[in-house]
Amino acid sequence: MNSFAIPRSVEWRETHITILNQQKLPSVTEYIDLRTIEDVHEAIATLKVRGAPAIGITAAYGLALAASRYETEAVDEFQRRLQQDRDYLASARPTAVNLFWALDRLVAAANSAASVNEAKTTLIHEAIRIQIEDEDVCRRIGEHALSLFRPGERVMTICNAGSIATARYGTALAPFYLAKEKGIELSVYALETRPILQGARLTAWELMQAGVDVTLITDNMAAQTIKAKHINAIIVGADRIARNGDTANKIGTFGLALLAQSFGIPFYVAAPLSTIDIKTKTGADIPIEERHPDEVTHLAGVRIAPEGVNVYNPAFDVTPNELITAIITEKGIVRSHYETALPSLFAKEEQYETI
Amino acid sequence: MNSFAIPRSVEWRETHITILNQQKLPSVTEYIDLRTIEDVHEAIATLKVRGAPAIGITAAYGLALAASRYETEAVDEFQRRLQQDRDYLASARPTAVNLFWALDRLVAAANSAASVNEAKTTLIHEAIRIQIEDEDVCRRIGEHALSLFRPGERVMTICNAGSIATARYGTALAPFYLAKEKGIELSVYALETRPILQGARLTAWELMQAGVDVTLITDNMAAQTIKAKHINAIIVGADRIARNGDTANKIGTFGLALLAQSFGIPFYVAAPLSTIDIKTKTGADIPIEERHPDEVTHLAGVRIAPEGVNVYNPAFDVTPNELITAIITEKGIVRSHYETALPSLFAKEEQYETI
Repeated sequence: MNSFAIPRSVEWRETHITILNQQKLPSVTEYIDLRTIEDVHEAIATLKVRGAPAIGITAAYGLALAASRYETEAVDEFQRRLQQDRDYLASARPTAVNLFWALDRLVAAANSAASVNEAKTTLIHEAIRIQIEDEDVCRRIGEHALSLFRPGERVMTICNAGSIATARYGTALAPFYLAKEKGIELSVYALETRPILQGARLTAWELMQAGVDVTLITDNMAAQTIKAKHINAIIVGADRIARNGDTANKIGTFGLALLAQSFGIPFYVAAPLSTIDIKTKTGADIPIEERHPDEVTHLAGVRIAPEGVNVYNPAFDVTPNELITAIITEKGIVRSHYETALPSLFAKEEQYETI
Repeated sequence: MNSFAIPRSVEWRETHITILNQQKLPSVTEYIDLRTIEDVHEAIATLKVRGAPAIGITAAYGLALAASRYETEAVDEFQRRLQQDRDYLASARPTAVNLFWALDRLVAAANSAASVNEAKTTLIHEAIRIQIEDEDVCRRIGEHALSLFRPGERVMTICNAGSIATARYGTALAPFYLAKEKGIELSVYALETRPILQGARLTAWELMQAGVDVTLITDNMAAQTIKAKHINAIIVGADRIARNGDTANKIGTFGLALLAQSFGIPFYVAAPLSTIDIKTKTGADIPIEERHPDEVTHLAGVRIAPEGVNVYNPAFDVTPNELITAIITEKGIVRSHYETALPSLFAKEEQYETI
């Protein structure tokens, strides 16, 4: 199953957790062992592990690891310490919804245990289940997405909706790994994705590890590349999808969707159901986070713009639904009428058997 | 006339030439004195001075300066040394057409001189004339361009078609300097322009020097910025304009033109007649130069992408004429039928009186 080296960001090793240190990519490929809850907190807080699902998985394993060492037989003492450690890990990245979700799922699972020993085992199993489910979701997204591409096609992507942000495979990058496994040739054109360069540092790196054909370009080369390299489609991940299909994703996504329209090529969003926020009616309800000007004015610690220059640094943009050819989820592909089609996906029968 | 500090890249000081060291921008604002022909050669070769017109002007002054020191009264000896120094300066940047043009114009001017003293004076006057003409051309372009904007408008630009690339004012940036001189408020949004970052390093810097309101963004923020900041127009320079109006310019220009179309805002090209190449029928005849992958994989000497990654690094792209709302030259604005309108500009009466 691991004949292609699709990088994993988190692995459970019984006595510790091994993570890929994403902070050091692409210069250094370093895997580090997390042996204490403090190690796990630090790894999440300092962005050694990033990507919402990967953070949730790491935190879940961290909580299970910590609990496995509680020296008590009293269930209520066990629960008290578990809640304490849950709060400690949750503080590692205060705005990471997926982090809270994974930790709370573990706490809830341990609640039904009759003994401390059963609770310890339950926690480990639940953490493993979260990882397996995420890998399954990503693989299903990849299978659906792959059905949209023909052998030999050239596909453009932005940022890193990749394997190392999830349990495995990623979302927008999943079809490329599945194509590789099946011997189908696809070529990827990755935008470097300023200001943080996730495309150059992470996407290019992880696709190369798996032997996927990838070419790096700067963000302003997109139009010329679509034309000169005959790009067939664009596929991106999503940070949040509104009920009507409007999609918030890394800055630059909206511009790519407009280019896809200009060139008459499809523009796909690949994301798990957990990204769809039914309570958000349209993209107009999604606030655009602005980040620190230093991200734009500095690169690798070096100043590249004049002191005191005004900067506009939106972290995300919102692509309106009419520019999105299809939204690809683990439960299938939605091509239109997102307003009704997206909510109905949730009603579809649960298909999360582990594979 | 210099109440606004529009930076100049070249100034003639009788005994030497003072240039702005563009290599050190934006961290250090350094003016250096070129006192010998070797100084001038080195400044051009090491890109301390850049921008086709600025290079031509610097070389012209360099040749005039060298010739002023020839210790001979014999016209033929003078001509022989002049040709030698012309060839030496021409070798500083072997593909710079503007460099050859300026040097040859000086040699031709000296040819008609009756004495060595007259030749020396002629050379200096001719070099000054080249600079004054270029400033005049840029100012005319700026006046025409400014007529297209209303007070308070927000305009986007890419790369550096600015004052420091020319004698003064620049091309695409000229309207902003003239607006400032006239007390008209315009806001500029400058794309950083990867991979070389001319927008971040040069455009942001020179507009700030003159007190023009400028905001820096990364290239992938263009669509979001046009939407969120209500951009009214896009204006760019040109490296080469084909007879039919197709325009080769810095990579990213084509994508901006497509965004302008999507948002229904005008897209302007500002360039002197010398940029229009009547012998090039369409953009399809303009080869796209590809540059070294290191420009994309490294920034400020730091590697930002995996070792061995494939890179596509086109330096330019070609914007098709149908996406160009108008081409703004020193002889006026052309809005359509470029195929016939551009050649007829050359027939218009010469208006290069010095101002």
